[in-house]
Amino acid sequence: MVKVPSDIEIAQNAKMQPITEVAKKCDILEDELELYGKYKAKVSLDVLKRLENKPDGKLILVTAINPTPAGEGKTTTNIGLSMGLNRIGKKAITTLREPSLGPCFGVKGGAAGGGYAQVVPMEDINLHFTGDIHAITTAHNLLAALLDNHLHQGNKLNIDPRRIVWKRVLDMNDRALRNIVVGLGGRANGVPREDGFDITVASEIMAILCLATSLEDLKERIGNMIVAYTYDNKPVTANDLDATGALTILLKDAIKPNLVQTLENTPAFIHGGPFANIAHGCNSIMATKLALKLADYVVTEAGFGADLGAEKFFNIKCRFAGLKPDCAVIVATVRALKNHGGVPKDRLNEENLEALEKGFGNLEKHIENVQKFGVPVVVAINEFPSDTEKELNLLFDKCKEAGAEVVLSKVWAKGGEGGIELAKKVVETIENKPSNFKPLYDVNLPIKEKIEIIAKEVYGADGVDFTKKCEKQIKQIEELGLDKMPICMAKTQYSLSDDPTLKGRPTGFRVTVREIKVSAGAKFLVALTGDIMTMPGLPKVPAANNMDISKDGEITGLF
Amino acid sequence: MVKVPSDIEIAQNAKMQPITEVAKKCDILEDELELYGKYKAKVSLDVLKRLENKPDGKLILVTAINPTPAGEGKTTTNIGLSMGLNRIGKKAITTLREPSLGPCFGVKGGAAGGGYAQVVPMEDINLHFTGDIHAITTAHNLLAALLDNHLHQGNKLNIDPRRIVWKRVLDMNDRALRNIVVGLGGRANGVPREDGFDITVASEIMAILCLATSLEDLKERIGNMIVAYTYDNKPVTANDLDATGALTILLKDAIKPNLVQTLENTPAFIHGGPFANIAHGCNSIMATKLALKLADYVVTEAGFGADLGAEKFFNIKCRFAGLKPDCAVIVATVRALKNHGGVPKDRLNEENLEALEKGFGNLEKHIENVQKFGVPVVVAINEFPSDTEKELNLLFDKCKEAGAEVVLSKVWAKGGEGGIELAKKVVETIENKPSNFKPLYDVNLPIKEKIEIIAKEVYGADGVDFTKKCEKQIKQIEELGLDKMPICMAKTQYSLSDDPTLKGRPTGFRVTVREIKVSAGAKFLVALTGDIMTMPGLPKVPAANNMDISKDGEITGLF
Repeated sequence: MVKVPSDIEIAQNAKMQPITEVAKKCDILEDELELYGKYKAKVSLDVLKRLENKPDGKLILVTAINPTPAGEGKTTTNIGLSMGLNRIGKKAITTLREPSLGPCFGVKGGAAGGGYAQVVPMEDINLHFTGDIHAITTAHNLLAALLDNHLHQGNKLNIDPRRIVWKRVLDMNDRALRNIVVGLGGRANGVPREDGFDITVASEIMAILCLATSLEDLKERIGNMIVAYTYDNKPVTANDLDATGALTILLKDAIKPNLVQTLENTPAFIHGGPFANIAHGCNSIMATKLALKLADYVVTEAGFGADLGAEKFFNIKCRFAGLKPDCAVIVATVRALKNHGGVPKDRLNEENLEALEKGFGNLEKHIENVQKFGVPVVVAINEFPSDTEKELNLLFDKCKEAGAEVVLSKVWAKGGEGGIELAKKVVETIENKPSNFKPLYDVNLPIKEKIEIIAKEVYGADGVDFTKKCEKQIKQIEELGLDKMPICMAKTQYSLSDDPTLKGRPTGFRVTVREIKVSAGAKFLVALTGDIMTMPGLPKVPAANNMDISKDGEITGLF
Repeated sequence: MVKVPSDIEIAQNAKMQPITEVAKKCDILEDELELYGKYKAKVSLDVLKRLENKPDGKLILVTAINPTPAGEGKTTTNIGLSMGLNRIGKKAITTLREPSLGPCFGVKGGAAGGGYAQVVPMEDINLHFTGDIHAITTAHNLLAALLDNHLHQGNKLNIDPRRIVWKRVLDMNDRALRNIVVGLGGRANGVPREDGFDITVASEIMAILCLATSLEDLKERIGNMIVAYTYDNKPVTANDLDATGALTILLKDAIKPNLVQTLENTPAFIHGGPFANIAHGCNSIMATKLALKLADYVVTEAGFGADLGAEKFFNIKCRFAGLKPDCAVIVATVRALKNHGGVPKDRLNEENLEALEKGFGNLEKHIENVQKFGVPVVVAINEFPSDTEKELNLLFDKCKEAGAEVVLSKVWAKGGEGGIELAKKVVETIENKPSNFKPLYDVNLPIKEKIEIIAKEVYGADGVDFTKKCEKQIKQIEELGLDKMPICMAKTQYSLSDDPTLKGRPTGFRVTVREIKVSAGAKFLVALTGDIMTMPGLPKVPAANNMDISKDGEITGLF
């Protein structure tokens, strides 16, 4: 296997095209482009009107098995597949989520793919990019400030300060802000109460930005966001605080998708990045819709494994947007499947057919799940040097048995060339296996029934238990008439079950739903099955500590 | 007098030139320009190298009398003067501070001039602009997160959590965040301690961004910022937390000046906007230096009245940057001077020569002060419909007696045409009265002596009293060897004294300095003479409540 330089070295040596050239390739008009430097641009939503009558391209979802410490390479595969499609003469666009600064300075460095399958300019994408996340932070915190100001100025709406559900946000890993007390220092300084900060990507506004289908829809959703309840249990919304216009103004540019490029100059829309637990974990509907008008093949992704990412992509994003996915690529590695089969991280380099076969259960379940949505499956095995021929043969056989196409992906080490085979298989699958996509449940079903369908059909659970608190919440939500919305499951990403230690394909388990939260603006109900961390902390040695910039502006340590 | 439409109406009807055209007019090369949409751009610092040997243009400071509720129009005059200079065939650039979102959604709406003397695109300038302030917010809060993480991970540096001087920031008016307790919720959630948020423009990083003369200088200053003290009284810096590289990376684009234009297409650099009390209140050195290479006349401004703004512009900004201002324009209005002379706000429309003469003392003192720095003065009387001929004649006579040139400015109602007379007077003054600029004190003098010079010479005080706390701090600062820095006075803007109720030209008063803060990165010592509010609150009816955006993106309520 070739020696691959570090991600930032590869990215810094990329031969980028001016973004105006990239835009031309996908027929974006000059007037529809707003440049942010030479290599980034925002694209006007006017494109949608201009191409209203043009048929959409094919939509390909890249998803994965349940993540393991071994790493799967979902983003890398997404980018590599789009480059592979270009290599075989297809007009392709990749659409991805925007990276958050929190993990960037915390554990993981950047999030723009890896090896020879990256999007560039990686420093800009990983840092402030075009300011979308900052706009969301500002809009979110303006609403919080207006709310606290309302309490301070006499509380005409009769808000119960103990029932404020709108926290503040920062795009930062900062555990000290998880639980705070605000409004201290006497009557000139507000009303004391408990509060806390989430990371910005957990903001409902991020989910809304990604689900909005127009500026008008964005504004309506923002107005509906519930920020608190009154002493007599009535919800208080952004509309009630006269905040909707100002918040929408702050998002007027953020709603426009961002255009960048892959290392091989494939157009890439990177736009929006909601959490994949308390939100739906997909890039924006606007970016996906734009891309479908501009390309023959659009590659998109969803957070975590297919039990969370693909399920929400299908049941939430595709439902709201009226999208019809044509194919799903499930990314897996031999190493990760062996980990699912019980092999610890430090012994993944050893051939272990038994563990692989056992761990395959995880992939098998995800294949079955995607098929339940009526979408044809291609499995992409992300190649690692430690993979043996026997292991690969076994894995190929098992995938075929499960009714999925399967192909070896070498995009990390070889870029688009390493994705040609995958691209061919995807095109062939789309041409030969028509998609019969439909969501898994009717939104008009009772809340519990919707959750049970997901838990049983997707997770393989025997059933669902609801806590008393949860039962009460469900009743309240029904009384408010907010129950006819899709479910957004917040569950551990490490298992198909709600227990992170159950690897592979667990059976004989029940799922416990502890709490239901209303995201009335995003228009989904969040079902929490465990403690979901919405403000990460920094590790012992944060990635930030090793970053530097020379006097000529050359950056190191951002990977 | 003509009927003038609202600011936002005028701005929305402006005939903007593409920013590439504006850049061409001041000889910026295409490669030195980074576009942010069609009408905003960042300009590379490479211009400075390319034009190293080109002589600088003339530097004009626009300052004002002590502000009153009547309004003076400093920014409007600045913009109008630059347009006036262009009208008489001079190559001029205006340089301004970036508006903060806090006041925009709070009391005052936008901050991009007014009437026919505005900078555009005003919505963008007033909202996120090119993201500089968001970058500062992020860098500031990353340092705070790294600091709290250091405490959480074992506190190797022996930081005293009670002596952390680095708060957090948001670009927001949010009084509930002034005094908070962070780190609650048990040991997984950090170390509990008192904390608080300032508005971002009060961040030392904002001051540093505006005082840095290169990326290298920026990084050095960031490394020196003091964030806390140890249990044994040693300062802890950003360098000690290994944070310098990451913070500087976050500011790599923010350091580049932003180019926009006036309503008459005059180039305008809008860059940086530090508080004018705890910081120095001027746009960035980089923007001013760039403009001086690109224009024959550069108009710049400083916050509040000349006692704070001009004093700091001369003693801090010009000293650090090696700038030599050629002329100062002091803005005043008949109404504001009558207010200084004792007339209440609701009776300013009535002719009152006696009050005007009494209130003139305020302007007279500012004229004398600027002259002490060796800089020639032009007084710009901002015309109001209520001004009578007798009042104007009196004011003109008094200004001339005080040794200043004086001219009527009509830029608000007439744009550049209304600024022609002012422009001519400024050019004539620069040509006939050479500047003998020098700062007012030597930085090597003892701290108390430097403060006394400012208080006596500029404010007209009899002397300065230092609190016991302050005496102790001065001793500590001397021990740390940080005393050889300029002084940044934090004083009320409403009076020449430290008592906001003393209007006009107060005499027979002493100034009390309560506290000295070290801004080791900005390289100045902040002398606080009263309670300085570094996190504003929202009013009863915030401006945000009246803002809206149509489905086609048309904004209303932002003024």
